[in-house]
Amino acid sequence: MMAGKGFVRTISVDTPSLNNNTADAQRLEKCLLDELKTDKIRIPLSMLKKLPSNIRQWGFKAKAVVFKDRQSWILLDLLDQESGMPVLGAAIDIGTTRMVISLMDLETGHEIGQKGFDNPQAVIGPDVLARIHYSNKNSGLKELNDLVIDAVNFNMAALCKEHGFQKQDIYLVVGAGNTVMTQLFLGIESIEIIKEPYIPCVNIPDTLSAGDLNLDINASGLAFFFPNIGSYFGGDLIAGILFSGLDQKQDPCIMVDVGTNAEIVVGYKDWLIACAGAAGPALEGGVSKMGMTANPGVIDRVWIDPDSKNLRIHTIGEKKPVGICGSGMIDLSASLFLSKKIDITGKFSKQACKDRLVEKEGVPCFVLVDEIHSGTGKAISLSQVDLNSLTSSKAAMYTILEVIVKNTAGLEFKDLQKFYVAGTFGSFIRPESAIAIGMLPDIPMEKFEVLGNSSLGGAKLLLKNPDAFERIMKIRQSITYIELNVNQEFMNMFSGAKFYPHTDRSLFPSLKGFP
Amino acid sequence: MMAGKGFVRTISVDTPSLNNNTADAQRLEKCLLDELKTDKIRIPLSMLKKLPSNIRQWGFKAKAVVFKDRQSWILLDLLDQESGMPVLGAAIDIGTTRMVISLMDLETGHEIGQKGFDNPQAVIGPDVLARIHYSNKNSGLKELNDLVIDAVNFNMAALCKEHGFQKQDIYLVVGAGNTVMTQLFLGIESIEIIKEPYIPCVNIPDTLSAGDLNLDINASGLAFFFPNIGSYFGGDLIAGILFSGLDQKQDPCIMVDVGTNAEIVVGYKDWLIACAGAAGPALEGGVSKMGMTANPGVIDRVWIDPDSKNLRIHTIGEKKPVGICGSGMIDLSASLFLSKKIDITGKFSKQACKDRLVEKEGVPCFVLVDEIHSGTGKAISLSQVDLNSLTSSKAAMYTILEVIVKNTAGLEFKDLQKFYVAGTFGSFIRPESAIAIGMLPDIPMEKFEVLGNSSLGGAKLLLKNPDAFERIMKIRQSITYIELNVNQEFMNMFSGAKFYPHTDRSLFPSLKGFP
Repeated sequence: MMAGKGFVRTISVDTPSLNNNTADAQRLEKCLLDELKTDKIRIPLSMLKKLPSNIRQWGFKAKAVVFKDRQSWILLDLLDQESGMPVLGAAIDIGTTRMVISLMDLETGHEIGQKGFDNPQAVIGPDVLARIHYSNKNSGLKELNDLVIDAVNFNMAALCKEHGFQKQDIYLVVGAGNTVMTQLFLGIESIEIIKEPYIPCVNIPDTLSAGDLNLDINASGLAFFFPNIGSYFGGDLIAGILFSGLDQKQDPCIMVDVGTNAEIVVGYKDWLIACAGAAGPALEGGVSKMGMTANPGVIDRVWIDPDSKNLRIHTIGEKKPVGICGSGMIDLSASLFLSKKIDITGKFSKQACKDRLVEKEGVPCFVLVDEIHSGTGKAISLSQVDLNSLTSSKAAMYTILEVIVKNTAGLEFKDLQKFYVAGTFGSFIRPESAIAIGMLPDIPMEKFEVLGNSSLGGAKLLLKNPDAFERIMKIRQSITYIELNVNQEFMNMFSGAKFYPHTDRSLFPSLKGFP
Repeated sequence: MMAGKGFVRTISVDTPSLNNNTADAQRLEKCLLDELKTDKIRIPLSMLKKLPSNIRQWGFKAKAVVFKDRQSWILLDLLDQESGMPVLGAAIDIGTTRMVISLMDLETGHEIGQKGFDNPQAVIGPDVLARIHYSNKNSGLKELNDLVIDAVNFNMAALCKEHGFQKQDIYLVVGAGNTVMTQLFLGIESIEIIKEPYIPCVNIPDTLSAGDLNLDINASGLAFFFPNIGSYFGGDLIAGILFSGLDQKQDPCIMVDVGTNAEIVVGYKDWLIACAGAAGPALEGGVSKMGMTANPGVIDRVWIDPDSKNLRIHTIGEKKPVGICGSGMIDLSASLFLSKKIDITGKFSKQACKDRLVEKEGVPCFVLVDEIHSGTGKAISLSQVDLNSLTSSKAAMYTILEVIVKNTAGLEFKDLQKFYVAGTFGSFIRPESAIAIGMLPDIPMEKFEVLGNSSLGGAKLLLKNPDAFERIMKIRQSITYIELNVNQEFMNMFSGAKFYPHTDRSLFPSLKGFP
């Protein structure tokens, strides 16, 4: 499917004669316009300088590396078809915490390798707010920009080396990140994002010269960044929508991405509605702060043993447990609720928990792993405070889903054909558990689909398929972005959702038979 | 007329608010698209980096420097409206022998100053052929390119300094030259231009970054070069057509440009026909080689004193005569013919010339200035060999005009509403003299118009008026370029034109009463 349809095309230019004495560049231009079925292409000077001797030496055939911006196609390079020179691209998920680079073969569309690493800007500030403040002081912006660019260059070079390529083989970089991460990657002033009326510098960064960004790839290389809708709805989400294919679905679907923020898109080919960002006080210290990141020894799954009815755990890498991550906490709370150790108001039941419930500094704590079995020598437990926070988070999530699906889109949950869960959170969460605590709506299990890193997925998709370019612009253009209005109605809905699974038990028919 | 309509626009961007929270770049983009009445503009990264603080500091007003290429408009810079920062452009006539730079104020459209200098590539080769051969060896192309770029940088800087500007004030360079000069300016391989089938590398050089050409102007500066029709019909001619306005005339007109080559365009708003280049053997050693260039002491005018009937001369700078230039030679031959010292076959008449005719190495020579009055101590004379060469040239010119106007365009000379004479040659020629010897057709004197340096004129016109961009592309697209076919019919016409003024005396009714 890829051959000749991606960003690398094999072309054959008309041979000149006394009757066809148009210049080489114009014959090349005509050939490319025909090949790309377009009427505009830019051919840079660097391509022209040796065009006459190259094109004759290659028998008027070449491999053309092309990309585009909103205005026209752009020729990046011409290569000898016989040379076997590789043409690579790099997709980058510019996460606030964690970044991932995927090295792609632009001719076959195959992934060559992937590398994940911490966003080095985290040493300056853990979140976007801290980094924006830092960027506004002295050389702060340049420091932050250097950090991320250096890390990307280092990791792209390492990926190339590992797989036997040169960094000059990379022609395209496609990045997807939230609005702040994208602006800091571009070295753009970002303080206005956090000052009323919260204006980003740019919604649609145009295709850029990689050299202008100090990206150490081919000298003719270009870089593209997914556009954003605003300060709180970034290119990572647009990449996610592209990856999920929401914009092409025949029936309404939903995509939920919980990373640093919670972002939700519902819609299909005819319309897309999105809501994103911090949902006011309800989400503060909310979903994203649940538990540890998924490292070895972290408990990622908890379930009730069907025979003994005891809780069982699984740790990443099957190491001795050292803590618990978000998905583990959802499993745990679901297990506790289903075994009646948490009541419908979200409080530990002394009666059911028995000696697993201890008091620490006056706060009830459920001991999941005692100090003997813990990898840290300390017991791993869930305090009532942790649980309250989880309760708020799950209630906020459910309420937001209700608002966007029911109040805004005018649908019922059952109308959704697919429920895509994206982001780090989505990669590990088990929908059964999330439904059990009333975090996700009670819809059939087969409708849930984990997308994994949809931001990276969208970036990779563009590298494979030029048609994605127009889809991206269309998605951006057509999304209706709604600000979550935390009013009295919202707070009422939120209050109901703080119960387990909900004050309106009829919303969760699959839990029939459970407490 | 210029204010706000050129390449510098005063703009006012919408102020953001909670209800208009589009990004700064997108509000700027919208404002520029409205201002320019277009749907495509590229805003480079360098503009974005400080956009948020700049645009707020300037109260959401700015002076925008814009230019364009075939694909879209391009934003070059944003300046504080209050700063009074100048915005300049440089028009360059890239002549094979002589170059001229004009420094322009892009806001008012006024010329600030002009500088002429020899094309430094002449030290490597006097003509395009020698330079192309040199460019094809080792580092020859780079040497030639460096020579011309260095000279342009030097002279632009000098012009700026003279008039109290900085070289960074220059944002646009517009160059017009023949196809070879343009390609060498761009550092492009050019050997194919002189190898069958004579293919230039590029017909339409796209708008380029000035930095890519090592032009030392504003870092965001762009450079535009007039497109060509082929190896023998360069951008200088397209610039000339633009300058003459031939493409907008209501009735057929003609433009003749005699520089290194003879180039002729006839036409008006509905069509344009051009012929150019060496017209085979007839023009070899022809028009362009007549006489010296116009330096002090060179005889530029010759006439018959009405009283004494003696020849009178004028020299440039009114110095003692040191030689004679092309226009002087045409005047001289006309005066000699009108006073019967040259007969209708183009031979000196011993009888009429009397003692002014001497023999040098067996060749008759007409002494115009004797050694006593000459500035060099040597007599200044016109030999029969010189005269034969002039005769060939004038016959070739007339024949080419006849072929293009009568045989090709199907017009009569009297149908031409204007006869534009461009180029160095045209700046000095006196049509009366050219008609007297049968070089130019016998049409009313008021139809002749000297354009001067039309190549520079066209480049300056583009700097003043963005609309010229589309005119240039349209002129290039619409010209019918004819190869001059030196066949038997041409040679027959040529033979007749070698007489003074012509074998068909009826073609020159204004010479009635003369010999």
